[in-house]
Amino acid sequence: MHSFPQHLLDGHANFMSGRYAREKERIRDLAETGQKPTTLIIACCDSRAAPEMIFDAGPGELFVLRNVANLVPLYQPDGGQHGTSAAIEFAIKGLSISNIVVMGHGRCGGIKAALDPHMKPLDSGDFIGKWMSMLGDLPGQLGQNTSMTEAERQTAMERISIRNSIRNLRTFPYVKSLENDGQLAVHGAWFDISTGELWIMDNNGDFIRPQL
Amino acid sequence: MHSFPQHLLDGHANFMSGRYAREKERIRDLAETGQKPTTLIIACCDSRAAPEMIFDAGPGELFVLRNVANLVPLYQPDGGQHGTSAAIEFAIKGLSISNIVVMGHGRCGGIKAALDPHMKPLDSGDFIGKWMSMLGDLPGQLGQNTSMTEAERQTAMERISIRNSIRNLRTFPYVKSLENDGQLAVHGAWFDISTGELWIMDNNGDFIRPQL
Amino acid sequence: MHSFPQHLLDGHANFMSGRYAREKERIRDLAETGQKPTTLIIACCDSRAAPEMIFDAGPGELFVLRNVANLVPLYQPDGGQHGTSAAIEFAIKGLSISNIVVMGHGRCGGIKAALDPHMKPLDSGDFIGKWMSMLGDLPGQLGQNTSMTEAERQTAMERISIRNSIRNLRTFPYVKSLENDGQLAVHGAWFDISTGELWIMDNNGDFIRPQL
Amino acid sequence: MHSFPQHLLDGHANFMSGRYAREKERIRDLAETGQKPTTLIIACCDSRAAPEMIFDAGPGELFVLRNVANLVPLYQPDGGQHGTSAAIEFAIKGLSISNIVVMGHGRCGGIKAALDPHMKPLDSGDFIGKWMSMLGDLPGQLGQNTSMTEAERQTAMERISIRNSIRNLRTFPYVKSLENDGQLAVHGAWFDISTGELWIMDNNGDFIRPQL
Repeated sequence: MHSFPQHLLDGHANFMSGRYAREKERIRDLAETGQKPTTLIIACCDSRAAPEMIFDAGPGELFVLRNVANLVPLYQPDGGQHGTSAAIEFAIKGLSISNIVVMGHGRCGGIKAALDPHMKPLDSGDFIGKWMSMLGDLPGQLGQNTSMTEAERQTAMERISIRNSIRNLRTFPYVKSLENDGQLAVHGAWFDISTGELWIMDNNGDFIRPQL
Repeated sequence: MHSFPQHLLDGHANFMSGRYAREKERIRDLAETGQKPTTLIIACCDSRAAPEMIFDAGPGELFVLRNVANLVPLYQPDGGQHGTSAAIEFAIKGLSISNIVVMGHGRCGGIKAALDPHMKPLDSGDFIGKWMSMLGDLPGQLGQNTSMTEAERQTAMERISIRNSIRNLRTFPYVKSLENDGQLAVHGAWFDISTGELWIMDNNGDFIRPQL
Repeated sequence: MHSFPQHLLDGHANFMSGRYAREKERIRDLAETGQKPTTLIIACCDSRAAPEMIFDAGPGELFVLRNVANLVPLYQPDGGQHGTSAAIEFAIKGLSISNIVVMGHGRCGGIKAALDPHMKPLDSGDFIGKWMSMLGDLPGQLGQNTSMTEAERQTAMERISIRNSIRNLRTFPYVKSLENDGQLAVHGAWFDISTGELWIMDNNGDFIRPQL
Repeated sequence: MHSFPQHLLDGHANFMSGRYAREKERIRDLAETGQKPTTLIIACCDSRAAPEMIFDAGPGELFVLRNVANLVPLYQPDGGQHGTSAAIEFAIKGLSISNIVVMGHGRCGGIKAALDPHMKPLDSGDFIGKWMSMLGDLPGQLGQNTSMTEAERQTAMERISIRNSIRNLRTFPYVKSLENDGQLAVHGAWFDISTGELWIMDNNGDFIRPQL
């Protein structure tokens, strides 16, 4: 085993002398009393789209699930080890969160891989292919639409994917019932990694800039 | 659909006027040229253990997978939709990252659920139970070990779990071969959410404070 | 003939006591010396998308062609009375303008009519149908894409249409030759009638927010 | 493609901080509920004769068609792509406007080109020539009338042209029938780009100053 990456050790030293030093009381309280986040963010692994950065969130605020392309599978209680479903279940049953945000982002590598059947940077039979197959044949349909630019197809697919994940979220019986009872709200968001803008999903499924 | 959580909109406005305003050039460059993180962090969803906070990391630095209890499953190319495996594959094959850090943390709710068969805040047949079953019967054995305190059993299990994930990581053929070739390094880390300390895994699998 | 609309007479009285009174010298000079605008804007008739409002432009600044959905036809010197082509010719040969901007906008009624073959608020054999047929069968293709919302299809079509008009512009021999000589630049823009935002077309044909 | 004209970006920034900031609510409402202008203005592309300036009109007030010399062709349902006719049809059938104003203006370049067979700044076989040929041989007759000054011939032709367009408008069957039913009114106007005065057409076809 190689030595621990120095940039991480340096970063941690910054954390200790910076945020930790400033917020020590609050951080220790959070450890003692337990986390009580009200929001689950389902986000992508992308290094440019950390929810804590985007929402300027401190310790204790966001319960964050991150997978490739922020996908949510259908509710499938088949005895398999479903990591995403486990996190959703934990957030709702263990933490009683009241908001779920599925947050996609621009220039998503997972979506890009799904849209480009020709480049195939990843082996077809492998995990990425299977994971992105959760979107059905939508990528293929959009990928052949040559009247939209490559970037437009990508953005369209990123947003279609968020709506798809939200539909899948609602196949979890407790999501649906809590939402019907007004105890849980499900939201969509899309982050522009270049301009920093946040777009939120309205009741039609369209993504709009929030009115501040 | 309820209105988007105000605390997130406020946080995003802070981001725009703060970090985004200060680092606009770098953030836009990252969007244009693509992410090139060198490190994959496999972390927990816990709201108190965001890798970007712990390592004081900015946009573009860390590719971050977060699931409940930062688990890695065995390599199972069975055609299932394995989100964690897809993220690992993407980080290695798509981004050619050179370091993987499996980072656990103190007072982990997933580990706590696994260790406490009596409280069962979560239904046994559900996703959390199945997800944590990746640890085999270790939680049961430790849970009945009454000579260790509850907190000691919890910390022990958090660290056992990290070593377990690292063993599973090495069942991915490309992880093993790249590690053997010296092109990839696999690390363990454990974060104390109360003291802020980072503990790193040494060659024996023990967790120690890094020597600065 | 009914009496002239009072709201127009009132508006003109405002103009006389306001802008005209303030800018009398400049307006009279412009009348004497002739207009020398450097920019042709090809825009839509929509009452919410006046170029002079959007670009805060005063008298003499913009030469403005407005038709339904800001379309440009192919270069067709067939002896017909082509109003749009005549305006383009006049701007280039008569005024030597150096920039042409094709500006579309959100929620365009012409594009909406083209995308919705079922509602047919306009008779199929009439002028609107023929005019919008300049887009070929693109509206039909996009209109059947149910994975995008209605609003997303509309925005996509508005932008496809701008690119189409720019392609058609370049079939005018003098547009092409002047552009090649660096004496004329052709631009695309899309105006959001709700947020007021202006999106400009980049070299890939994508619409982006200008970096101020 | 060259960069977007800076004067337009600057103008748009003025719009955002000025009118948009002041009228945000109204502008957003207009986007949501759709435009409901009551007036179609058929005007010239001239940079000195923007209808919104002349009538001090805000967003949503005027549906504006602009072509060279504000001409209206005869009703010709021949399957051709008639942009001016499409805009008229859209205004009447799609928006149910109740007033149409054909507005000419002084020192009109299109009229000037039509009146001056010697200067021929524009190739005779081209689009401008064909477009202005809608006026029949009137320009030639007036151009040779040496007892009127050049400026008098120009103004006379501008007004003859407005009457001609109004006659052509009435060849559209729905214009004629709606006008007969009292649901649509057709008006003529002429704008003096130097003095700012508006002249309106009376029942004899004469242009007079409105009595305020």
